[in-house]
Amino acid sequence: MKIGIVGGGQLARMMALAGYPLGIRCTVLDPNSDACAGQVAPLVLAKYDDVDALGRLMDEVDVLTFDFENVSVPALRTLADRTGIFPPLDALECAQDRLSEKTLFTRLAIPTPPFAPVASRAELDAAIEDIGLPCVLKTRRMGYDGKGQAMIQSVADIAAAWDRLGDQGELLLEGFVKFKREVSVISVRDRKGNIRHYPLSENKHRDGILTNCFAPAAADDVQGQAYHHAEKLLEHFQYVGVLAVEFFDVDGTLVVNEMAPRVHNSGHWTIDGAETSQFENHLRAILGWPLGSTDAIGYSAMLNWIGAMPDPSLALNSDRAHWHDYGKKPRPGRKVGHTTIHTESAAELHAEMAKFATSLGNQLASGADAFLIKR
Amino acid sequence: MKIGIVGGGQLARMMALAGYPLGIRCTVLDPNSDACAGQVAPLVLAKYDDVDALGRLMDEVDVLTFDFENVSVPALRTLADRTGIFPPLDALECAQDRLSEKTLFTRLAIPTPPFAPVASRAELDAAIEDIGLPCVLKTRRMGYDGKGQAMIQSVADIAAAWDRLGDQGELLLEGFVKFKREVSVISVRDRKGNIRHYPLSENKHRDGILTNCFAPAAADDVQGQAYHHAEKLLEHFQYVGVLAVEFFDVDGTLVVNEMAPRVHNSGHWTIDGAETSQFENHLRAILGWPLGSTDAIGYSAMLNWIGAMPDPSLALNSDRAHWHDYGKKPRPGRKVGHTTIHTESAAELHAEMAKFATSLGNQLASGADAFLIKR
Repeated sequence: MKIGIVGGGQLARMMALAGYPLGIRCTVLDPNSDACAGQVAPLVLAKYDDVDALGRLMDEVDVLTFDFENVSVPALRTLADRTGIFPPLDALECAQDRLSEKTLFTRLAIPTPPFAPVASRAELDAAIEDIGLPCVLKTRRMGYDGKGQAMIQSVADIAAAWDRLGDQGELLLEGFVKFKREVSVISVRDRKGNIRHYPLSENKHRDGILTNCFAPAAADDVQGQAYHHAEKLLEHFQYVGVLAVEFFDVDGTLVVNEMAPRVHNSGHWTIDGAETSQFENHLRAILGWPLGSTDAIGYSAMLNWIGAMPDPSLALNSDRAHWHDYGKKPRPGRKVGHTTIHTESAAELHAEMAKFATSLGNQLASGADAFLIKR
Repeated sequence: MKIGIVGGGQLARMMALAGYPLGIRCTVLDPNSDACAGQVAPLVLAKYDDVDALGRLMDEVDVLTFDFENVSVPALRTLADRTGIFPPLDALECAQDRLSEKTLFTRLAIPTPPFAPVASRAELDAAIEDIGLPCVLKTRRMGYDGKGQAMIQSVADIAAAWDRLGDQGELLLEGFVKFKREVSVISVRDRKGNIRHYPLSENKHRDGILTNCFAPAAADDVQGQAYHHAEKLLEHFQYVGVLAVEFFDVDGTLVVNEMAPRVHNSGHWTIDGAETSQFENHLRAILGWPLGSTDAIGYSAMLNWIGAMPDPSLALNSDRAHWHDYGKKPRPGRKVGHTTIHTESAAELHAEMAKFATSLGNQLASGADAFLIKR
């Protein structure tokens, strides 16, 4: 079987690697000749909205998918009769616009922070009046890893937030949720409508970038809510593939933050710590195959390497660590790799994480951003 | 890091796939343009004894290794100063000749069946006189998967065995060992001399081809013997990389059958069922990196697909099965893929295996050769 992937980053790379043992061969499309998935799979060099190149790729594959949200939905819609595109473009389009996304969450009765669209400074003031402080001004489109966001703690921050984002196109104001922790669920739905969920992951962010995850999270109280909310979204879109949904845990009630219609950073632990990885399950789903088990095996923590890979010796010398280097050039703020720490018990995981946190003290300053989950 | 692999079969393919997450890129050298490792890594099309091509490959990589034994040792010896070659050529050369191999086993006090070199029909008769019946006549070189062997049960079989193999070059006669079962150990030694062993695998063969494995084998009584024998071999060669040693279990005493100085079919279960796969550990060892944990996670059974891949639905519908398709064209007797059944308990493994054995009844006849381990 052949799969085309729009986007050639680390998610495409890990999908392609998950495909080979299954007899699946992926081809990636990316405008950058050094896209890291191109090291492990054939690369079509083209812009994301190059209809000719997309069409040729679709003619060669059994199904098309993508490794990030900001692909061109209009370009793909004109090609939808060429071959199957999964996840569905409706889900992609919805996730591309924070306003559509939050409007849907509300319609599906998934708790979400208060929000209002903002098109002018006057609308911003009115929205703040409604929603209250603190709040966050965000671009409606093209935001990821905390980009395109401005925190408004007090009235004094309003002008600066507007100065920064006022000319960035359509905006959205969101109430700031005071949460206990952030969790996410990785769910997958196959073409027959069967749904499976991985255990929840507890996630830590820094400067808007995911730095580490712990799974299965201690989340007996909220796991059912996450599964229920994810199922509403999956059914709504008649979704096929992996969907990630991020939540704030507000004293035992999950409030949705956002969804990602693709494999997700907070599911990387599944490569080493689940019976079937999120990457394999995404490929199985979009090809119309049955889903693999989403059972966790033991306990996993995922540490993102941001900016540059750290000295590998700590991970390579640990019996519990798995090293993942995406083959990318270093660049500040760029996700270049991750390490999964995989143990039989939660206690062992925390002990091993503590070793990493101690040893990585210096490297935290130099870009390899990982810190200990405090529980 | 870059690694060159002489040979582009499924072992090279699985090594290349294990390398990518570690930031290791493999290039394979094979005379066949459809070598299956060429689907996942750059392929240099050249004969195994093409000194120019081998030399160019060695200039481009950090270390050279191989995915099968029958590569040209003389060609590689002339190039040994170009870059590191691991495992050591002495081990490769020894394993290429059953007589050298068995002589070494004897020298290292590793129990081995009685054996004698055979160069003529008269020597065959004399050797049978010494060793007794039943016995097995084997070619000294180029044997694998049971090829180049003739069983001699009684005096009536001698002439046929000689007719079949008498003109096949140097031969060896071995006493036939009546064994309870076959087991193997996958061991790995790093450049600093650290050694790790995977738990023993119990192996079933049919027509000389490995059909399935069960690991960890119930082998408390013999595991220490296997580790001890493997260590003697590893130390003898100052070995670096994965070494597989196959044994007959004769009422609790292990008698060595053969060694393979490479990753091995009986270690495929480690991809899905061990903390670190044999493929990753081989790459770590030959690059001078520390070894990963060889702990088993739960219980695994490996079913080889021989001749042609079976209908995948049974495996894909099992929550406990992992599908491995090597991307090879079907051919009788050819190993084209495997499935690992991976469970938390031995009892669950046997129950799942029983389902596979029942369902695969038809397919057994059509080439996908798997059967239930009886315990």
